[in-house]
Amino acid sequence: MADLETLFDSLRAAQARLALEDRRRKDAGLRGAMDAIDGARKGILAANSADVERARSGGMKEALVDRLLLNERRMDGIVEGIAAIAALDDPIGRVKAGWTLPNGLLVEQITVPLWVAAIIYESRPNVTADAFSLAYKAGCGILLRGSGAARESNRALVKAIKAGLDAAGGIPGAVELCPSESRDEVDVILKARGRLDVVLPRGGRELIRRVVEEARVPVIETGEGNCHIYVEPSADMDAAVEIILNAKLQKPGACNAVETLLVHRDAAAALLPSLARALAGRAELRCDGRARQAISAGVPPTALVLTDASESDWETEFLDYILAVKIVDSLDEAVDHINRYGTRHSEAILTNDLRAADSFCRRVDAACVYTNASTRFTDGGEFGFGAELGISTQKFHARGPMGLEALTTIKYRISGSGQTRP
Amino acid sequence: MADLETLFDSLRAAQARLALEDRRRKDAGLRGAMDAIDGARKGILAANSADVERARSGGMKEALVDRLLLNERRMDGIVEGIAAIAALDDPIGRVKAGWTLPNGLLVEQITVPLWVAAIIYESRPNVTADAFSLAYKAGCGILLRGSGAARESNRALVKAIKAGLDAAGGIPGAVELCPSESRDEVDVILKARGRLDVVLPRGGRELIRRVVEEARVPVIETGEGNCHIYVEPSADMDAAVEIILNAKLQKPGACNAVETLLVHRDAAAALLPSLARALAGRAELRCDGRARQAISAGVPPTALVLTDASESDWETEFLDYILAVKIVDSLDEAVDHINRYGTRHSEAILTNDLRAADSFCRRVDAACVYTNASTRFTDGGEFGFGAELGISTQKFHARGPMGLEALTTIKYRISGSGQTRP
Repeated sequence: MADLETLFDSLRAAQARLALEDRRRKDAGLRGAMDAIDGARKGILAANSADVERARSGGMKEALVDRLLLNERRMDGIVEGIAAIAALDDPIGRVKAGWTLPNGLLVEQITVPLWVAAIIYESRPNVTADAFSLAYKAGCGILLRGSGAARESNRALVKAIKAGLDAAGGIPGAVELCPSESRDEVDVILKARGRLDVVLPRGGRELIRRVVEEARVPVIETGEGNCHIYVEPSADMDAAVEIILNAKLQKPGACNAVETLLVHRDAAAALLPSLARALAGRAELRCDGRARQAISAGVPPTALVLTDASESDWETEFLDYILAVKIVDSLDEAVDHINRYGTRHSEAILTNDLRAADSFCRRVDAACVYTNASTRFTDGGEFGFGAELGISTQKFHARGPMGLEALTTIKYRISGSGQTRP
Repeated sequence: MADLETLFDSLRAAQARLALEDRRRKDAGLRGAMDAIDGARKGILAANSADVERARSGGMKEALVDRLLLNERRMDGIVEGIAAIAALDDPIGRVKAGWTLPNGLLVEQITVPLWVAAIIYESRPNVTADAFSLAYKAGCGILLRGSGAARESNRALVKAIKAGLDAAGGIPGAVELCPSESRDEVDVILKARGRLDVVLPRGGRELIRRVVEEARVPVIETGEGNCHIYVEPSADMDAAVEIILNAKLQKPGACNAVETLLVHRDAAAALLPSLARALAGRAELRCDGRARQAISAGVPPTALVLTDASESDWETEFLDYILAVKIVDSLDEAVDHINRYGTRHSEAILTNDLRAADSFCRRVDAACVYTNASTRFTDGGEFGFGAELGISTQKFHARGPMGLEALTTIKYRISGSGQTRP
């Protein structure tokens, strides 16, 4: 992996220069990259067509092909994404805190780039542009390790980005695409202690597990979302049905889609029959005994796919048109269930009871806790971060949707006039 | 390690309760622990005497015995340290940021406890009290894994802490001392993924290396300090001598003591002879050729221990009365040397040149960068954090002296009125 070692060195050298660029110059680089991508649309779309053709002939499922596919509308999205990040405030050089010690020393806590990051990701080509633009704005070097399926798309995108940075007087060496997509390459990345400052794995359970096991470089896990909605008797049941439909059906393959519905026993009769009617033909319901009974009492069985839930259903991120349903006797039981089976991603309570809302939000251990809204909003774009590197399900360094702030750290700057320690 | 597994469970259960305590109740617990330690002084000092006797009869060096030793003055320090932490603002429940999305969703970023931490530390008994009180105030459970040398002292301290918490209506189960000090115990801690949220190793290079290699739990490295002072021609040379003497001699065994002095060639004649006279008989100087020449020209050789520096001297944290000295031709060379050999801990420039100070502070990659002051101030107590868990030399999650903030993370709380994603 001599190639990769060379890239580590050149990324670090480029980052040392990028870290000294002011906002105006970084934004000029971003706009240069944006213009170059916009101008190279034809070539990028042609490269993407080649990837898509290869994927289809290799038998890739259409749902996955869709993640890989670029078109004019998605190219617009990529270009607009870079513009949105250029418009954000500089995350670097902020004085987060500052105070003067009794001896006159001024201590300031100042944001600085996290240095050089690597991202290992699946076949979405827009991640290439998002990760580059967030890293560049945050003054970080970035190593992009895309999937083999998106090879031509990523090469075309990175070529345009580098050309655009060059034309705009930016620092093209601050972004690099891995030369191959081999497994060995991932090994080298995970062991690059002292050369990379963080690795961001995006992808399935297997990739995350491997990275956590093998990495000697700090990792931010962008893990699974086994998300729950818990409904109390005091909830607005019409709104509850709309929220659950949205959280389940609007994009079932997303990590912030709901997977298990928990219903207070006193809310079951008011919620479940109408919910089941609304989901009939659109999602399978995997129910515990009491939930099944509540639904069966109010809905003709022919209209529904209704099955018995097993223990493994509580643990599963279906990423599909399937919803597990369980009746609970109390808020406590709901919180316990979520803290036992949840993945610390996004959890919601639907209620009109202030004390219950507050207790749920405090006691549920998750990056995002919602009151009376769909879990689908857990997203850097929705939160106003311009784009995201992924959604952190760990508590360390970054939690929830990761935008620019996740790529920063702090430095203490201490200014004195000859102080010594007595 | 059945015992340890049981402790993981009980710590997590206790932490779940502690996380819901308000500041008043947490401070009452801290004051209870403080009073109990104060009241148990005799027993704690007797336990410590047993540890000290065992250490001396086992041949422990006096410098290390001193770290282990408690006396009335140090007991005062422990008690005052807990009071100082009780007086600090609650780090939990702060709204760090908040904004409303176009659809009316209120998004708030709220500080929450990091959950359960483990600290692996050397023989200082005050760390037992400091780590407990920081963790308790931050709503975290803490597992203390002290050294075998301090076994009796730690047991007596933790017994008093638990009794004090109990008497004050606090949560004694939130702090636990490991039952043995075996190597196996450390293995279990490092692998306790999902049960511990962070491990803080304090100690020598070997412990840190082992933890980084073996841990599957997030780690905050509290690494070595190979710290530098760089002197420019514009510096106040009298102040420079005082600062260097302080940074080298005031506590040479501390990680924030200076190890290498870098002198601009145009500052050598003004600084080095007077510095060498001041250090004569108090520290050995390991010099490169030009530094040796500058010193020899101004000081009678008999007064000094002056040796030739080798490559390994630039890499060494001496923790001793030894200072490496090198002449550099420019600020650039000083920055490059520090970024190459430094350990990202504490670095200082002595100068009256504003542009040089700014450039140094921006370009040097370290937790703490100083202008015109001794590096010895890198310390949680000095910074006003009440106490410290250690000094982080990593960029991830926490950097520099770690107080309460290092034991917190954030949670997004999203409050809606039925919002769904279009």
